[in-house]
Amino acid sequence: MTAISKDFCPSHIVLCGGIGGAKLALGLKSCLGSEQLMVVGNVGDDFEHWGFKISPDLDTLVYTLSGVSNQEFGWGRNGETWTVLEEVSRLGGDDWFRLGDRDLAVHIERSTRLDQGETLSKVTQDLCKAFGLDYCILPPTDDRVRTIVETNVGIMEFQEYFVRNQCDPVVTDLRYEGAEKSRLLPDISSALLNPDLQSVIISPSNPFLSIAPILAIPDFQKQLANCRAPRVAVSPMVGARAFKGPTAKIMGELGYEISSFTVASYYSSNLIDGIIIDTDDADLVPRIEKLGIRTYVTDTLMNSFDEKKRLAAEAIQFAESLGE
Amino acid sequence: MTAISKDFCPSHIVLCGGIGGAKLALGLKSCLGSEQLMVVGNVGDDFEHWGFKISPDLDTLVYTLSGVSNQEFGWGRNGETWTVLEEVSRLGGDDWFRLGDRDLAVHIERSTRLDQGETLSKVTQDLCKAFGLDYCILPPTDDRVRTIVETNVGIMEFQEYFVRNQCDPVVTDLRYEGAEKSRLLPDISSALLNPDLQSVIISPSNPFLSIAPILAIPDFQKQLANCRAPRVAVSPMVGARAFKGPTAKIMGELGYEISSFTVASYYSSNLIDGIIIDTDDADLVPRIEKLGIRTYVTDTLMNSFDEKKRLAAEAIQFAESLGE
Repeated sequence: MTAISKDFCPSHIVLCGGIGGAKLALGLKSCLGSEQLMVVGNVGDDFEHWGFKISPDLDTLVYTLSGVSNQEFGWGRNGETWTVLEEVSRLGGDDWFRLGDRDLAVHIERSTRLDQGETLSKVTQDLCKAFGLDYCILPPTDDRVRTIVETNVGIMEFQEYFVRNQCDPVVTDLRYEGAEKSRLLPDISSALLNPDLQSVIISPSNPFLSIAPILAIPDFQKQLANCRAPRVAVSPMVGARAFKGPTAKIMGELGYEISSFTVASYYSSNLIDGIIIDTDDADLVPRIEKLGIRTYVTDTLMNSFDEKKRLAAEAIQFAESLGE
Repeated sequence: MTAISKDFCPSHIVLCGGIGGAKLALGLKSCLGSEQLMVVGNVGDDFEHWGFKISPDLDTLVYTLSGVSNQEFGWGRNGETWTVLEEVSRLGGDDWFRLGDRDLAVHIERSTRLDQGETLSKVTQDLCKAFGLDYCILPPTDDRVRTIVETNVGIMEFQEYFVRNQCDPVVTDLRYEGAEKSRLLPDISSALLNPDLQSVIISPSNPFLSIAPILAIPDFQKQLANCRAPRVAVSPMVGARAFKGPTAKIMGELGYEISSFTVASYYSSNLIDGIIIDTDDADLVPRIEKLGIRTYVTDTLMNSFDEKKRLAAEAIQFAESLGE
């Protein structure tokens, strides 16, 4: 059960991974009221560390949208201190995952409440409130979904690949453990079925690591495929490079062409009606359109707040144009 | 298994609760080398909080003997910060147990290692090393023992009684859950059986709450009863008051006379040969001696380091005199 009001019928749903997704979500927040926007965050990156249940992508969304994220690092909280980590390190403990003191408090509170039987969706919404955020951020499911990375040096959980091994191993396959049996959150299902829904926007997060774990939830995939509202992806690629992270590297390792074309064909016309690609990639338009996917070409970098806001507004407008 | 050297044959064993016990242990440390002293700490106060496994008395011993304890509070660490607690509190979480940031790191490290299957004795010894302490501090057992306080308002774990309810409820009974089936640490058993052992000293901790959980371990009680070395207790009472904590209150609630006489008769001549009582209680000497327990009268307050050292030296000498 979530704490969302029964009358909550968002007109826009955005699917987000961590940092890239949070940037677009921040842009959307400046375009849409809290009653209009539902933010669905990836939980495939969730993991246990120091005995805590950590949801890095949901936290990045909460921190970014509530204005307490660390702009310098791109992750974690601003004004953070590292007393606990430094002491754990001194005691010989695991220090490969950098947990700040204030961030740690969030994991303590979430873990305590999950251990008491509360759902991740309820805890996430209460965290939003505690951070003064009235926007709705939800995991796609309250069940356990874990992105498992198969590599040339062995099988590992996402954070082990991403943080501990710094994306160094060659990815040979990806699995979303638990996704097949996971139940889509009823509130998301309602939002997807809402006839007044105006768009589903897939943020420029890593398609394989951040968006796929959401799409791997059978009911989500089915309902997105049948959704009447326009579905628009924003590509995380500029040429053969991604905004950040290992998207391009993984794309190559999995044998795909390293470009926005792969992003479009990965989602396919079954799940998206349109895709926003960078001006640098205008030459991909004919190939993507041949997939039955409409294109919108613009500057997709989101360094400044104005760029986030502009791209978000363009995504909303693009979706609107597809619905006409 | 513990990491203690096989050749470790301490000449003195001290049983300790938290703060009062740690004071005497600090005095003993200044009188005895690390090869001479074994400190056995209470684990009946151990509990789980925020998902961590916390051993307050063992930590007080480690912090006090390594010189990092907080002199002002009497618990926790010096130079402590409270970032995590403040943030957990702000998020609406449990903040009744005051965990500092550096203290928290110790609980994270202990919990992680216990969850990985290491023993509490091994983890405690490694913590000693990490704090630059070459003295041996051990739990009496690696099994779970919990002091359960039965009160007029319900049954509760020790920390709930002690910290959350500030010793306010009326104690009707005490149990040491798990003690009966717990196994005495082999290293402590060897030390108790060592023919060169010169004393077992029971520190002036709460007999019911801090020492009883150790004595409740069947093999400990049996071996202490049969121990050849003199066994000396230091009373935590001065008149009808205890140095600190709820000792006097509980003594009264359980129907005992509130005095050092009760401490002596509680341990009984089966477990102690002598008791050190305060000069204020010199009138109790005949009654205590009638129990078959020898007495040593001195100033038992340990505010200054010199007082701790003097009382420790007197305890050693008193034990020595009983062995003659």
